[in-house]
Order: sequence, then C-alpha cells, then structure tokens
Amino acid sequence: MIVSKVSTRFVYFFDEGDASMRDLLGGKGAGLAEMTRAGFPVPPGFTITTEACLCFYAGDSVFPPGLQEEVAAAMDRLEAETGKTFGANSNPLLVSVRSGARVSMPGMMDTILNLGLNDETVKSLADLTGNERFAWDAYRRFIMMFAHVVLGVPKEKFEDRIKDCKRRLGTQSDAQIDAESWKELTREFKAIARNHSARAFPQDVREQLDLAIRAVFDSWNSKRAIDYRRFNKLPDDWGTAVSIVEMVFGNMGDDSGTGVAFTRDPNTGERALFGEYLRNAQGEDVVAGIRTPEKISDLQQSQPQVYAQFAQIASKLEHHYRDVQDLEFTVERGKLYMLQTRSAKRSAEAAVRIALDLVTEGIIDKKEALGRVSAASLDQLFHARINPREQFETACKGLNASPGAASGQIVFDADAAVEWKEQGKQTILVRVETTPDDVHGMIAARGILTAKGGATSHAAVVARGMGKPCVAGCEALQIDRRAKTLGIGDRTLHEGDWITIDGGTGKVIAKKLQLIDPPSELPSWLSKFLGWADEVRSLEVWANADTPQDARKARELGAAGIGLCRTEHMFMQRERLPIVQEMILADTPRARADALAQLLPFQREDFQGILEAMQGLPVTIRLLDPPLHEFLPSLETLLVEVTELRLQKGVESIAFKERNAVLRRVQQLHEQNPMLGLRVCRLGIVYPEIYAMQVRGIFEAACKLKAQGLDVRPLVMIPGVGTEEEMQQTFAAARAVADEVVTESGCALEYEIGTMIELPRACLVAGRIAEHAQFFSFGTNDLTQTTYGYSRDDAEASFIPHYLEKRILKDDPFQVLDRAGVGALMRTAVDLGRSAHPGLKIGICGEHGGEPSSVAFCHALALNYVSCSPYRVPIARLAAAQAALGLIT
Amino acid sequence: MIVSKVSTRFVYFFDEGDASMRDLLGGKGAGLAEMTRAGFPVPPGFTITTEACLCFYAGDSVFPPGLQEEVAAAMDRLEAETGKTFGANSNPLLVSVRSGARVSMPGMMDTILNLGLNDETVKSLADLTGNERFAWDAYRRFIMMFAHVVLGVPKEKFEDRIKDCKRRLGTQSDAQIDAESWKELTREFKAIARNHSARAFPQDVREQLDLAIRAVFDSWNSKRAIDYRRFNKLPDDWGTAVSIVEMVFGNMGDDSGTGVAFTRDPNTGERALFGEYLRNAQGEDVVAGIRTPEKISDLQQSQPQVYAQFAQIASKLEHHYRDVQDLEFTVERGKLYMLQTRSAKRSAEAAVRIALDLVTEGIIDKKEALGRVSAASLDQLFHARINPREQFETACKGLNASPGAASGQIVFDADAAVEWKEQGKQTILVRVETTPDDVHGMIAARGILTAKGGATSHAAVVARGMGKPCVAGCEALQIDRRAKTLGIGDRTLHEGDWITIDGGTGKVIAKKLQLIDPPSELPSWLSKFLGWADEVRSLEVWANADTPQDARKARELGAAGIGLCRTEHMFMQRERLPIVQEMILADTPRARADALAQLLPFQREDFQGILEAMQGLPVTIRLLDPPLHEFLPSLETLLVEVTELRLQKGVESIAFKERNAVLRRVQQLHEQNPMLGLRVCRLGIVYPEIYAMQVRGIFEAACKLKAQGLDVRPLVMIPGVGTEEEMQQTFAAARAVADEVVTESGCALEYEIGTMIELPRACLVAGRIAEHAQFFSFGTNDLTQTTYGYSRDDAEASFIPHYLEKRILKDDPFQVLDRAGVGALMRTAVDLGRSAHPGLKIGICGEHGGEPSSVAFCHALALNYVSCSPYRVPIARLAAAQAALGLIT
Repeated sequence: MIVSKVSTRFVYFFDEGDASMRDLLGGKGAGLAEMTRAGFPVPPGFTITTEACLCFYAGDSVFPPGLQEEVAAAMDRLEAETGKTFGANSNPLLVSVRSGARVSMPGMMDTILNLGLNDETVKSLADLTGNERFAWDAYRRFIMMFAHVVLGVPKEKFEDRIKDCKRRLGTQSDAQIDAESWKELTREFKAIARNHSARAFPQDVREQLDLAIRAVFDSWNSKRAIDYRRFNKLPDDWGTAVSIVEMVFGNMGDDSGTGVAFTRDPNTGERALFGEYLRNAQGEDVVAGIRTPEKISDLQQSQPQVYAQFAQIASKLEHHYRDVQDLEFTVERGKLYMLQTRSAKRSAEAAVRIALDLVTEGIIDKKEALGRVSAASLDQLFHARINPREQFETACKGLNASPGAASGQIVFDADAAVEWKEQGKQTILVRVETTPDDVHGMIAARGILTAKGGATSHAAVVARGMGKPCVAGCEALQIDRRAKTLGIGDRTLHEGDWITIDGGTGKVIAKKLQLIDPPSELPSWLSKFLGWADEVRSLEVWANADTPQDARKARELGAAGIGLCRTEHMFMQRERLPIVQEMILADTPRARADALAQLLPFQREDFQGILEAMQGLPVTIRLLDPPLHEFLPSLETLLVEVTELRLQKGVESIAFKERNAVLRRVQQLHEQNPMLGLRVCRLGIVYPEIYAMQVRGIFEAACKLKAQGLDVRPLVMIPGVGTEEEMQQTFAAARAVADEVVTESGCALEYEIGTMIELPRACLVAGRIAEHAQFFSFGTNDLTQTTYGYSRDDAEASFIPHYLEKRILKDDPFQVLDRAGVGALMRTAVDLGRSAHPGLKIGICGEHGGEPSSVAFCHALALNYVSCSPYRVPIARLAAAQAALGLIT
Repeated sequence: MIVSKVSTRFVYFFDEGDASMRDLLGGKGAGLAEMTRAGFPVPPGFTITTEACLCFYAGDSVFPPGLQEEVAAAMDRLEAETGKTFGANSNPLLVSVRSGARVSMPGMMDTILNLGLNDETVKSLADLTGNERFAWDAYRRFIMMFAHVVLGVPKEKFEDRIKDCKRRLGTQSDAQIDAESWKELTREFKAIARNHSARAFPQDVREQLDLAIRAVFDSWNSKRAIDYRRFNKLPDDWGTAVSIVEMVFGNMGDDSGTGVAFTRDPNTGERALFGEYLRNAQGEDVVAGIRTPEKISDLQQSQPQVYAQFAQIASKLEHHYRDVQDLEFTVERGKLYMLQTRSAKRSAEAAVRIALDLVTEGIIDKKEALGRVSAASLDQLFHARINPREQFETACKGLNASPGAASGQIVFDADAAVEWKEQGKQTILVRVETTPDDVHGMIAARGILTAKGGATSHAAVVARGMGKPCVAGCEALQIDRRAKTLGIGDRTLHEGDWITIDGGTGKVIAKKLQLIDPPSELPSWLSKFLGWADEVRSLEVWANADTPQDARKARELGAAGIGLCRTEHMFMQRERLPIVQEMILADTPRARADALAQLLPFQREDFQGILEAMQGLPVTIRLLDPPLHEFLPSLETLLVEVTELRLQKGVESIAFKERNAVLRRVQQLHEQNPMLGLRVCRLGIVYPEIYAMQVRGIFEAACKLKAQGLDVRPLVMIPGVGTEEEMQQTFAAARAVADEVVTESGCALEYEIGTMIELPRACLVAGRIAEHAQFFSFGTNDLTQTTYGYSRDDAEASFIPHYLEKRILKDDPFQVLDRAGVGALMRTAVDLGRSAHPGLKIGICGEHGGEPSSVAFCHALALNYVSCSPYRVPIARLAAAQAALGLIT
C-alpha cells in the first residue's frame, strides 16, 4: 500500500474541490465539486479523500489522526448550510454516504442512504414531510442498508419479512405497504440486525456516520471489488474516497423522482438524451427494478420545466467536460438536484461514433478523439452478437468473462458437450466452475457459463484463450449436476434446454436467440475513424492469414501485408493429409521425394491464391513449423486400435500388421516434448527436401503471377532459428531454390528471406543471425513459452488461472506481452539485430500483435510492423496510433 | 579458411627453424628443426610451411607462386649437403615426405617414404647397398604407398598380390620373398597403379615429389582427419606442414633398425625409457605389426653404444623440452638418426604422476604442473577399465567415442538388447550405425559398437549423453544383420558371443575380459595433485548427490558441499511410490494430506542421512521438481491394459473399472509438453502441502541432528522460479514451516532458502528474484533446454548428432555450456542478482559444473561454486585451478 505525500487535510467541501482532484476526491467527489463550483444544483456535502482511506488501511483500520475532527467540523458546516441538525429531533439532517474511486466501479463498493435516521429523527421526518409512510419507509431502508453493509446481515433476511408482510396484506407491491406496516417492519428489522450481527443497530447518528465511513473504506477491499479491479486491470492501491451529501428525496410524491441519463445514446452514440426516470422513487429503486421506469423523454410531458432545466444542464456538462456524461439526478418536490456526473461508459460503436461527432462539433480534435476509444473494445465489433431486434428478458447477469454471444443447449458436463457435439448439436457448458478436467468439453461447447469464479477463474482464462464466449461467476445460478437442472430465480431449466449467453455484457437469456455474425466489411464510420489513426501511426499493421479468403478479409480490414502465412494448415487439408503421411512414413529419400513431388502442385496453388489476393503488398510465408507427428494419427488412438486388432484379429492378420507398422513409426516419431523437439527450421535442416519443395512452390507461384503482370512480393520466413549457422544454411538453401526458379522463369522477381525470432537464444545472438537475414519477425507465442518455460497448451488450462488468481502473474503472458522478460529479450534482439544490420526490418507476428498494450510496446521498440489475426487489425491500427500519440505506453 | 600475414617464405631448412615455430612448421617440422639446431643427429631436410598449405587451399589446390622454386632450391641444398643427387642413376637422393600439423594427429594424415626411386634409381640403390632385395623391397613399398596416397588405389590390391606371391613361394613371411619376386611384384604394382587410377606411376622423381606434397596437403582435409579434428575440437584452418627428409634405412641389416620410445612410461608415468625397437625394418613395419618388436631395453644388449647414445639424447630432449617426449628414430648400419620428437600423449594417471615427478625433479613448477593434465582426462580414472593383468589381443580399433570399458554378448538390434536385458544378460549393441530408432536398445546395452560414423555420429553423441561406453566408426567390422554375424578380419563372431570394448582407447577385443570398477577412493598421487589445485582455485567445488552413499563419495572426492540433492528420486523408491501415487490421485485435500503424512517420515529419514554424511558442510535440497505424472504408470501402458481388460473382461468388470479410473486420472494429468508444464515451483504453489511436507521433513531431520550436537547446514532450493512473485510466495511459505519446526525444537539452526535459476525469464528478472532469495544456483540443463528450445530427451537422440555433423553446433550444448546464449543469460542473472543483493552466493548445479570449459566460464563469471556429479568433482577441482591460473579460459 503506497501512502506517499500524505496531505494534512482529509476533508474537502464540494466548493473547495474541482474536476482536477479526481485522484484525491474520487470520480464522484470531483464531479460533485466541479458541478458545485460551476453553479449547478448539487445538494451540499463534502468528500473524505482517498488518502484518508489509504491511511486507514496502513493503520490497520484505524482512522488517521485528525480525520474524525475534520469530519465533525464538516458536519457542522453542513448543518449551518442546510439549516438542519444532524440527529436533531426537529429538522434533522440526513445524509448519504457514498463511495467513489478514481474511476467508476459501478456497484462494486457500498453506499448508504438516509443516514441520520433513528427512532427519534424518523418522527421529525414524518412531521416535517407530513408523510409518516414516507418517513418509516426511509427509516426501514436505512436500517436494511446499514445492517447489510455495516453489520454484514444478509439482505434476504429483510426481504423475506417484506414478502411476509405483503402476503399478510394480500399485495404484491411495496407501494401497498402502509405506514403502520413499515413501522412494524422497522421494529422487526432492528431485531434482525441485533440477532444476526455482533452489534445492534446504533441509534447514535455520529456512530452511524463513523461506522458507515469505515464500511465504505472496507468495501474497497471486498472480494467483488478486488475481482473487478483484477478484470479491469486497476491497481489495488488507489483506495476510495467517501462523499457525504445532504439527502434529497425523490420519493416525496409525484412531483418527485429520480433518474439516470446519458447525454448521448451509449449504445449507438446517437446525439439525444438517453435514460430513465422513476417517479416518486429513491435511486435504489431504479437499480432494484421494482417498477419499470419511464424513458427520460417522458419527463418532458410530466414536468416540462424540470426536463428543460435538466436538458440544459446535461448539455452544459457535456461541453464542460467535453465528453458524453452519465448523470444521476433527483427531483424533490419539483426541484432538480444533480447527484453525479461522470464520463459515460459506452459501447465500442458508440465510442467511435461519439468521438467522430465531437470532432465534427468542434468540441475535441482528432488526437483527442483517437484517445476516446479503447482499442481493445473494438474487438466487440468482430464477435457474434445478439440481434438487437430480438426481444428478450435477461434471466441473470454474470461477469463478462470472454466476449461474443452464443446460443446452445444446456449440458452439465464436459463429456456430454463432446458427445452432443458429435451428434451435431450446439451446447453451452454450464458448470459451477471449470477445472482442467473440463477443457475437452469447453472445446466442444459453443460457450461456457459458470456460477462461481471471477475474471481470472479457470473458465474465464481458458475461454478467452480459446476465443470462446464465457459468462463467469453468475451467482444467481443454482446448478444441480445430478438432477441435470439449472435454477435461475424461480425458473428451472433442464439439460437440452436452449440458453443464450453474451460474454461481452455478462447477460444470460433463457432461450435461443438469433445472433448476428460480425460484419463482413468495415462500417464506414469505423473506416473513417481508423483513417485518422492511420495518419498518425508509425507502426505498420499486417495480418496473419493462411488462406486467400483470410488474406482478402485482412486487406479489407486495413492490413498492409501478410506477416505470417502458416503452411502447416495447408498440409492438414483432407486430400493432402494422406500424401503428407506418406512423405513422413517414407523409408527412403526416394519415397519421400515422390510424396513431396505430389504435394508441390497443391502448395503452388495455395501460394498463388494468397499472393494474388495480396498483390502489391508483402506476403510472409513461413516454412513448415510443427513436429511431423502432428500430421499422423494420434498415438493414443493407435495404441487402442492396435490392441483391439491384436485381440480380435490376431497378430498374423494383415489389418494388425498394417496398423502396427504405422504405430511403430508414430512411436519412433513420438517426442517427450514436441514443442522442444524436431520442429521449426530443424525439420528443414534434417529433411532439406521439405523446405526445398515449399520454396519451389512459393516461387513457381510468384513467377507465374509476375509473368501475368501482377506485383507480387513474397517473403520467405524460416521458423525457430536459434543459431547463426541455422540461419546461414537455411538462408543459402532457400535462396538457391528461389534463384533457380526465378532464373528458369526469366522474370525479375524481388524477394526476401528472413526469420522468426522465437527462441531466447535467437534474441541473444540476434546480431549474428541478422547478418544472414533480410528481416526479423518476433514469434512471441513461442518466445513466451520458452522464456517462461510454460507450454501454452498445458499452462493456460492448468496453472495460469491459479497464478492469476494468486497474483503471481498480473496478466496471462500469452495474452499481454511480458515486458520484463520476453520484452527484455526482444529489446536485446532489436538492438543487436539493427547494430549488425542497419535498417533491418523487424515485426511481430505472435498473437500479441493485436493486443493494445503489446502494440504500444512494439511501438516503443521501434518495430516496423505488427501482424495479427484479421479481425484484430482494426485494434492494432488504433493502438498503434494511440501509442504514437503517447496516449498509451 | 584464414590466410593472414602470408610470409613470403614457404620453405625452411631444419637449421633455420626452432621449437617456437610450431604453428608455421608443424609439430614434426619444429621438432626436427629444434633437434638439428641443438646438435642431435637428424638426417638433413626442410619443411614446407602450413601457410603454403593454406595458400594451396585458398587457391583451389594450386601451389602458391614461388613455392615450387623454393622447393627446388631446397632440394638443391639437400643434394649438396648429402652429396647425393635426386633422380640420379648413381648415388640417388631418396627422401621421405611427411605431414605434420601444429599438434599431433597420429595416423590421420599421409606420409610417403623412399621417394626418389624409379626404374633406374632402384638399380643404383641395389648397387650402392650391394643388396638387390633391399632395393626392390624399398621400391615396391614406395609404389604401394604412392599409389595408395597419391593415386587413391586401395592397398588391398597390392596386398593380395603379395599374398599370392607368398602362396606361390610356399611361405608366410615377407622376409622369405627374394629379390626376383619383389622385382616381379614391382612390375605388377605399376600395372595395378595404371589400371586402377587416372594416371600411371610417374618415373620422374620431381613429379613424384610434386604429387606427394599435394597429396599431403590434401590429406589435411581427408574425412578421417576432419572427423579427428571434430572429435578433438581442433580447428580446420591450421593446415599441415610438409617435411622432406633424407631417407635413412633401418632395414639394411641386423645393425640397422627402427624404433619408437617414450622418455617415461605413458601408461603409468614411471621414469624409465619405454618403447619398442624392430631390427632390420622400416618404420612402417612397426605400425603394420608384421613382426613383434623387442622392448627398447633389449637394444642395450644388442647395440650398447647405440642404446647409450639414444638414452642420453632422450634424457637431454626431455630436459630440453621440459616434458616427456615421444621419439622416433632409425639406426642405419649402427648410426643413430632421430626422426621425431614430440610431447608424449599419456594416460590420465601418467599425466598426473609425471607432473608430480617433474616438480619433484625441479624441472617445472606447480603452476606448470597443473597445466600439464587435461582436466577432462581425469574422467578416465572413474570409469570401468580393463584389468591390466588381462592378456588380450586387440581385434580391431575404432574411434574412442565414449569412455569406459564394457564386456557383453553381441546383439545386432535394439529390440534384442532389450529382450536379452530382461533375461538378465549383458549385451553390446553392434550396429553399422545407430539411429533414433535404436535408442531403447542403447539404453538396454552395456556398450555400443558401430562400424560407421565419427565422433559426432548418433551413436557417439547419444552414448556420451548416457555415460555409456562406445566405440564408433570401427571400419574393420563386417556386420551381417540378417545372418547375425560380425566379421573382424578372418574371424567371425555370432550373436551371443562375448566381446569387450574400451571406449577410452577405441579397442575392440573378441572375448570377455575382467573389468575393474573405478577406485572407491582417491589415489594418494591424485590427492596430492588436486591439493595443489585447491591451493590456487577460487571456485568452490560441490557435488550433486541424492543419497548418503553418494554424499559420502562426493566428500571423499573433495566436494565442499552438496549443491543439488534431488528429492524426486526419493519419491520413486519402491515402498514409497504407492503412497506418492495415492497422494497424486487424491480427490480431496484431506486424502492428499493423509498420503503426505505417510511420506513425511521417509523424507525425514532421507534428509537425516544426507545431512549427517555432510555434517559441517552445506547441503542444498531441492524441493519436488518433475511433473506429477512421472510418478504414475505410463499412459501408453495403461491404454493397452485397459483396452485388453475391456475386451477380455468387459466394461462391467471391477478390474476394468479400477484401471480405467487410473487411466482417466493419468489422462487428466497428461501434458503435451511436461517439461514446460505443471512442475518445478508451480507444483509447490498449486499444491502447497507437498512443499510444506518436504520442508518439514528437512527441518525435523536437521533439528534432530543439531540436538545431537552435529553441525548441519541445510539450504532449501526452490526449483524453476520465473517471477518475483513465485520466489516471494514460496520463500515465505518455506520459511514459515522451517521457523515453526525450528521453534518447536528449540535449537538454534541456521539455514538458507534460495532458488534454481533455470529459466530465461529468471535470468532477466534476477534482480527482483534476488530480493527474496538467499542464494542462486544455475540449473543449466533446463536453462539450455529453454534457451535453445531443445528438449534434451528428444534432441540428443534425434537432431543434435545431425547438427554436430553439419557443424551447426560446435558442441552439444548439454555437454559444453553455450556461452553466447545460455552464458549471456547467466551473466545477466549474475549482474542483476548481485546488484540487487550484494554478496549473493551463486553456484551452478547443472551437469556443466563438471565440464572444464564450462567451469572456466563459471570462474570468469565469478560464481562461488560449481556442483557436479561426485566422480566429476576431481575434474572440476583441476579445471577451477586451471581457470584461476589462466591456463584455460
């Protein structure tokens, strides 16, 4: 916990602060202060600083010296300003005690309303308002909230009593509960608080205040707040501020009400007030969803002056803050009070469109606009999403653990997911939580839904790694695995029932919904916005694509080249695999050569398609990379099969002999750790004829197109070089074949031969490698594997979730580039490589190439390009611009 | 090929050179020059420099300008000095043309004797010597050698004719062949030369000389010479010198002869002339073994003056060169000629004893003595060797590819080796060459013998990795795998016949021999010598030992601590494995805890034994390291077993269900790349109870011994740390348990907790790790695996031999520490670690800790200690001293 430069002052009245003091006063406190200073109608109040909160932690939950005195003095001033007295029997001062960190963490920390009520002041409130029901309703709300937040009493204890009461009264609505019943419930509530906690509900209002402040401080370290910060990568050492504000009441009749509104539509970006208003209600009622609120525009009919005033304030605030605002307000008997203003959270689409509009409106410039959109959020635009025309009810919400929407039939275990998939069914795997034992089911399912676990839970981490939708930690789920039922509230679903999850919002919907696939081309508004990004970025953005289709898609999305075309996927295709297997199982070089000769036309065709799709742009083709046994039947399957044949047909049967021969060969090729075995350029050195065939395929294709007048630019990439000699030998061998083909064809084709830098040793001897290479491309997936000693397949499904949970890892290093380790090696490689080979072109083609923080690091390393999967190209374009502008580092 | 500073002079007469010109004149040329200048009786001659040889290569096998003229001038001077004329019909000058590199490469390059003979000069020689038989014998020898070396005619072609001739004459001995027969054979030899080569045997003696010089130059790049250099790590760019020496003849009667001798016994080091003398013979006869030579001491009886002169020269040469000399000489009609002097090759034992004696004799000082013994050669002393009392005949010789002797029954394929081993038999696997498919057989056999392949062949590399004797490239073997026979010369051996190989000398013996195990304690002479090493070295030498026996052995051999005690071997023991499996298969933490509780007493006992054996010295105990599935039955075996049970007993049988459950669990734990999976400290973090049990075991043992008054010094080593947080958490957890036990016991025990640095990332963030660690120990086996991306198990048996062969790797990086890559990471770790934690103790416990060049590197890094297997401790002690003295770098 960092507690530096402790100010001697812990409390600021709203008119003493401003928007610049967000770190000290929290977002809410700074907003209220700024609005107060700007003359907007804000109830009076003051804010206890985040520094006070940090001192409180540092001092083992003891208030720092002076805090209590400052709070007392501020309360005195509040009494003076409001003309009310805290705890007084006549005209009592009531306050809300609200949390507020530097950035909004909605719903994660605690707030207490109506503080200052007790058995005496409630009566004064009844007298003053002439509304006994209102007063007792307010009091019981306060007790409930206080008992829950401060004393830790479960809410249900109270809610059950309210239900009982409504049953007695024969009603379904709280509104039907009369003053006497609330009074009675208040008594019961106090008894519950006493029985279910260590202490009774305090009547002393100063004690109430003291305990409430502590509770808000503590809520910074609640599990859900910590999980939230982990997911959103927020530091733990900010602390929360506490704002204490005079209560205003939206539930004092039909001329009162409470609302939340955005100055523009946060989903579409449309320039119009967007929000909800609930008449005769307190803020919490909106959240609780007890009644359906009106649209904010309806307020225009019912209270036109209030609406006009609010609309004007909203517009002024948007101009004041130069951004779309998310506002909370209350109308008390026709008088408008602003309770909060903050930058509005918005969808990726809205973020882009609003940024474009604000530039058009002259409010911000292009640079600022580029900083207004989180690059990572653009990912949302390229996942399946629920058709907005679908009407549906959200059954419950969990954590938005891995983006994208999925509909499927419920299954409760991993094996079932696999079986159902084999029957052609789509499933959603529903588990209390997942473990490494569930991974096969996660692969088979369309999406994953769990009841427990946060953003770093196994389900969340593994699903993100798979690019599969996941809603995690959805605590409302009651899963009975034996009975194969899923309870959500009163509803019970069974295995095979349809369900939809939206991993981008955390919503769970208990039916099948129509989903929309990502757009096939870039929307014009996004094109325009990314055009601005392109103007400022220095990093080129290329794409990883293995097929002409992917290459065309990448080009549409703005890729300026192919940074990685993997040739192994081409080997896996149905009609080729038998030939590839023949090549691998060959006993003699002659037989191997024959098989390779059969593969050559296929490869030539593959390369021709991609080179054609990318004409005018560079295409980097990586020679064969994976260990050969990836192309053979699985050893485990073969073992079972051969054992069966042995027992059923006998060792003399032809069937046994044939499969046994294959088994033998697969066993010979089997490696303990294939990731560290005979793969990458080692394959091309031990079996030079494989690389020779591939290089021939590339250049025959390129020369053919060149002869047709196309501008083709092939780059040959040697994978996994770790020594100067490997580079030298594979470079020479590839060049010999390339030159031969080019000379044969008689066309003047330019090309380059370079290497993936994906081993620690390659980074450490990069200077020597650079002497024989025309470009470098960092393969950060593999580099991360060896730098950490983590096999991606094994680690992401087993200990990485545990490591994230325990904070041993801040991020999954396969998602976010590790700067201290992998990054240090990259820096070494860049320095050595460029020293030995000035102007050496260097890129990155690991998956990090499409992750904003990693892109920023690549910018800092002065790489020439990043290459990522086609749908991440827009993210990389924006991130590269933000990095160039210093908006991200 | 480096050709720098080309001197304008290519030829030096013997009296123009000296011992310091070894690089230019080769060992032989420099020795002859030095002896000439010192007045020893050397036939006159001159040397063509190594630079001439390099120019010859650089110029595509064209003599550099001036060389031929210089040679001609030198021949003129030689004629003048000897009074003979080259190619003349009367008193013809005959010369030998001898190769000679900087260091001796015995038998690897070519030599031609009797050059200058042709159809005419042979007659003069007959006249001059009055010995026609001698003359024609000399001529036919020359034609044979010339045709073989220069014209590439196989020797057998000639030998067959000699055999035919002897058959005709009804004799078995060359000595019975008369002048006429030699004359006839000479005619036949010339015909053979003409028929089997591109050109005829030249009669022009200047052409003979010219071609002979070229052939000697070329022999530097013969396959066997290249293989030899590869094995002995000699550079290719030295080239060979060529010495041209007047012929003297040891075959001119009983007062003539030829001999080789060492000034001391090269096997034992004993101070006495040691060698052989063959009367009436030329040098090649000694090598060919046609007659059995006498002991050199026998010369004392037959020619006492010659012997006395020789003994005096030998003694003078030893003093002159300050080292034991290997001498070649010829006696021509009672006159002694020295033909060569060079430092004698010697056994490790002799090297040490001679070094000790030379110091005693005041010839060299201790420092020089320490430089006289190759540290690596001490390895010989600790392998099984053939009992010197055994009488045996060497059937043939191959390459000494992996040291140690082994006797066993011949098998011809890997599967047989496995089967026979299962029957309790010892085998030697005999193969033309091995491939990765033979590895299981290599594991099962006692030793490996191959007909093909050099020091970097698969067999050689894999056997060295296994520490198993291997003789490779033994070209005399005729292997018929189908017939299961092994031919060596005229003899035929069959499968099951006994054979002995000595991988230290390359000898193959066609019978079972008694072997001697390595000495159980350090011989006193070695002790004394290593004592000198200890006086000068700064690196401490520790040992890797897992058992009290190994620990005691290490201590005897001079280890000052245990640098690595692996705890996993303890888990593998028969009575414990079931408990370990129970622990792994546990469904609940409770069940796991129960199994661990059962393991605790075993572990405590293990640690007690080692701590007791090493009292007074540090013992570094590494917590559990390997992936858990290493302790479970093999997945492959289980798959077969479960399939059999399913088909034979049915899926409802208990047997099937039980094994199937185990299979499931093994499949769950199965990892794609276990080396990069859930292992090292990741195990201890995911299952903290395992490490807690081990730490408890260590400290309960230590405290018990401490209470008995023993000085025990436990160090706890956390494996595979890659992040600061791993170190911090495992350090804290281990310390908590340790302190608890120490406090419980009430004894004041000091201990340390540190980590293995064995991942690239650990090196890169070593500064942060060092803040939480009390020591570092480099685990260079694993560090090499991840830095290169090579799985040791997979790579050493598959592509590393290929890489060594193709010179992509200079050394196997698992044998010799890679300085450019792994070493760079180590340097980073040392710098960062010591900056953050001044005085941090750093060692190495990978197998490199016992390899001299790697030890020198550790010295340069200023590590505190190296730790290696017990038998390598002497090597490390000497290497550390040599490094401290700057004798190796």
